[in-house]
Amino acid sequence: MQQSVVRSLARTLAAELPSSADRDVRLQGWVHRRRRLASVTFVVLRDRTGLAQVVVRDPDVAAQVEEIGEETVVEVTGRAVANPQAPGGVEVVDPAFRLLSQPAATPPIELWRPTVNAGLPTLLDHAPVTLRHPMLRAPLEIAAAAVAGFRDTLTGLGFTEIHTPKLVGTATESGANVFRVDYFGRPAYLAQSPQFYKQAMVGVFERVFEVGPVFRAEPHDTVRHLAEYVSLDAELGFIEDHRDVMAVVSAVARGMVRAVQELAPAACERLGLTPPSVPDEIPAVHFTDALRIVDAPPDEPDLNPAHERALGEWARDEHGSDFLFVTGYPMTKRPFYTHPQPDDPRWSNSFDLLFRGTELVTGGQRLHRYDDYVAALRRLHQPLEPYESYLETFRYGMPPHGGFAFGLERFVAQLVGADNVRKVTLFPRDLHRLTP
Amino acid sequence: MQQSVVRSLARTLAAELPSSADRDVRLQGWVHRRRRLASVTFVVLRDRTGLAQVVVRDPDVAAQVEEIGEETVVEVTGRAVANPQAPGGVEVVDPAFRLLSQPAATPPIELWRPTVNAGLPTLLDHAPVTLRHPMLRAPLEIAAAAVAGFRDTLTGLGFTEIHTPKLVGTATESGANVFRVDYFGRPAYLAQSPQFYKQAMVGVFERVFEVGPVFRAEPHDTVRHLAEYVSLDAELGFIEDHRDVMAVVSAVARGMVRAVQELAPAACERLGLTPPSVPDEIPAVHFTDALRIVDAPPDEPDLNPAHERALGEWARDEHGSDFLFVTGYPMTKRPFYTHPQPDDPRWSNSFDLLFRGTELVTGGQRLHRYDDYVAALRRLHQPLEPYESYLETFRYGMPPHGGFAFGLERFVAQLVGADNVRKVTLFPRDLHRLTP
Repeated sequence: MQQSVVRSLARTLAAELPSSADRDVRLQGWVHRRRRLASVTFVVLRDRTGLAQVVVRDPDVAAQVEEIGEETVVEVTGRAVANPQAPGGVEVVDPAFRLLSQPAATPPIELWRPTVNAGLPTLLDHAPVTLRHPMLRAPLEIAAAAVAGFRDTLTGLGFTEIHTPKLVGTATESGANVFRVDYFGRPAYLAQSPQFYKQAMVGVFERVFEVGPVFRAEPHDTVRHLAEYVSLDAELGFIEDHRDVMAVVSAVARGMVRAVQELAPAACERLGLTPPSVPDEIPAVHFTDALRIVDAPPDEPDLNPAHERALGEWARDEHGSDFLFVTGYPMTKRPFYTHPQPDDPRWSNSFDLLFRGTELVTGGQRLHRYDDYVAALRRLHQPLEPYESYLETFRYGMPPHGGFAFGLERFVAQLVGADNVRKVTLFPRDLHRLTP
Repeated sequence: MQQSVVRSLARTLAAELPSSADRDVRLQGWVHRRRRLASVTFVVLRDRTGLAQVVVRDPDVAAQVEEIGEETVVEVTGRAVANPQAPGGVEVVDPAFRLLSQPAATPPIELWRPTVNAGLPTLLDHAPVTLRHPMLRAPLEIAAAAVAGFRDTLTGLGFTEIHTPKLVGTATESGANVFRVDYFGRPAYLAQSPQFYKQAMVGVFERVFEVGPVFRAEPHDTVRHLAEYVSLDAELGFIEDHRDVMAVVSAVARGMVRAVQELAPAACERLGLTPPSVPDEIPAVHFTDALRIVDAPPDEPDLNPAHERALGEWARDEHGSDFLFVTGYPMTKRPFYTHPQPDDPRWSNSFDLLFRGTELVTGGQRLHRYDDYVAALRRLHQPLEPYESYLETFRYGMPPHGGFAFGLERFVAQLVGADNVRKVTLFPRDLHRLTP
């Protein structure tokens, strides 16, 4: 009888408990923590929406709770009552416990502790369990929100979502750092980016975006590099030059930051996240001016990390902005499909977006004339043949276009201030790690 | 002077032309078609929103148009005027043309013809160009809308988006049909599904979904199989049994169909698409009843395509539904992580969703107790060791859970009635095809 009443009761989520006082409730979740005092045992239950406090006074139930280790999955039925001392102001009393699975083994880290002290290898080796920790889960909630913000912003601007193949026939974009696949007995490669495909799709949809994995056989073991990451790519046609692309990047950055605040407020609060300020117009400096700002010699071919950090400080001091565009990078440092600066072809119509002094986005205007591609590849003494199916697009009329790519994990790492991109990556892949 | 005026004029999209009568306009797009009559030349311009008619009477401009081949990218400035005979009721007169790129070569198919007569190899070999045809582009617009519907429905139900690795260390889910990768000198594999990862993430988020590529080294050359496709995956915890999963599948199917109608109406109209009817409750039959309905012997181990077609007809006749769930498939035919039917372990708590008589979704309840996994693998004489990092999740408390997966390309193919999944796939990959 009791059982059938219980079953007919809808599940109450932890976040709904504060508004459920004086009602019978049925909670389901993980035993997050037990605390046994002299006359009372507290059980904190965790579900996807947060934590709920359950108060056990009945000695028989307390004895049962004694047996239920942390992380065991249970159903708790009881009465929700107001208690100003309880988290959220409401707790569950007179509870009955029912196991929904077998009792849990002791987890590799204590998930109920407010902070995480375990080393990175432990956290990564046991990620399916350690990610349950609210502090470790938070960056993944932020990532989901950021991706939603990316897509919503671009959809609002008339972009169409595409899904391009990750198995490709030639390692064209860069011969190095590419993973080789046995494809029915012949070689194939994992795509390092959707670059060529998104450009081709500008010919079909004008404006496209893709959220998907990219693969880099990155032989460097650094805190910033992964062998597989999620790339947020966009490409648009009918631009005047790279500044039209930068306007879209600005809108996207704003949309992503806003989405993180609106869709993942609990994760932001848990991490004590200070949302960055994205000005209405993100400041931009040309590469040549950037060198002057950081006191680098004018013939420096690229910006190093120290330069980027100095530029980040300059942007905050001079413009009150966490973001800064650097434009016009030397053509020699950009890929062959980059459009040169029309008035001085030493420089390019390209840009990086720095976020707090670290590169976050790379983009620019691309070549759009077939003849320019042929000339660019010839200048680099590259054969045309591997690029044939890529170049075909440009024979049949392509508008001036450009695009950009965010690395999702780097964005999240920079947002939450993680010192290693692996800390915010779901099951990272690198030189040494292929599991779990 | 004229130039600067023109530049300051915002671009008018083809779809905006009907509401732009009696205004100066600046259009940009591809020359879709030219028609030269005795005293007038019509130019149809194509952009991402549709077609626009431009009327050329000036002989000098007509001579210029003569030189501009189809697919050349141009800017047209002129006056928008109402004309009941023009498509959309408004056309552009007194135009000036400016090339935005170099003149286009003659495309491999005539993109301006209303229907496509070329063979599949031609269409696929030249996909970057042939996909510009409005009829070939339409399925990709429908795919984008369907994915948006999938995500929006699940987000509304409290699911969190995840991105799981495609490079995996062991070919566990099925040893066959897996692509092998050279991973820094050791073997790795391309994930055939995010199955194990999405289950693990139920322990973190309770409800998760993923949209991403999956890889099958499929040695069969059929109209339904691809070596790489987009899988729409979801998994949820705290279910009673597979029927809770089916309720989510129903909501998702409804959300996807609605999104296709709302977000891609032009594509639906172009293809003359009849939207399927998704009843409030999708009918469901148990496998044993399904065998009876199709007059198959009761010991038949699986449903073949003819059976599925007959069930599709039955669902339409008996329930007025394009969709039908078949539940309870024999355990021997389902993967080892499938939860058995509690009252008769010959059958499983699994289901397929048939759409117009073809399998569209596979799903079910999974095992959630560590001991059950160990027993299931032992029964199959499988070693535990390769599954270790997968099984770890279940040691630490996992709720009863289940999930499902849609194949995006199959969904679109069935929706638009394509006889080959390649016709609705962006750059398909199969036994023979790795380009473009």
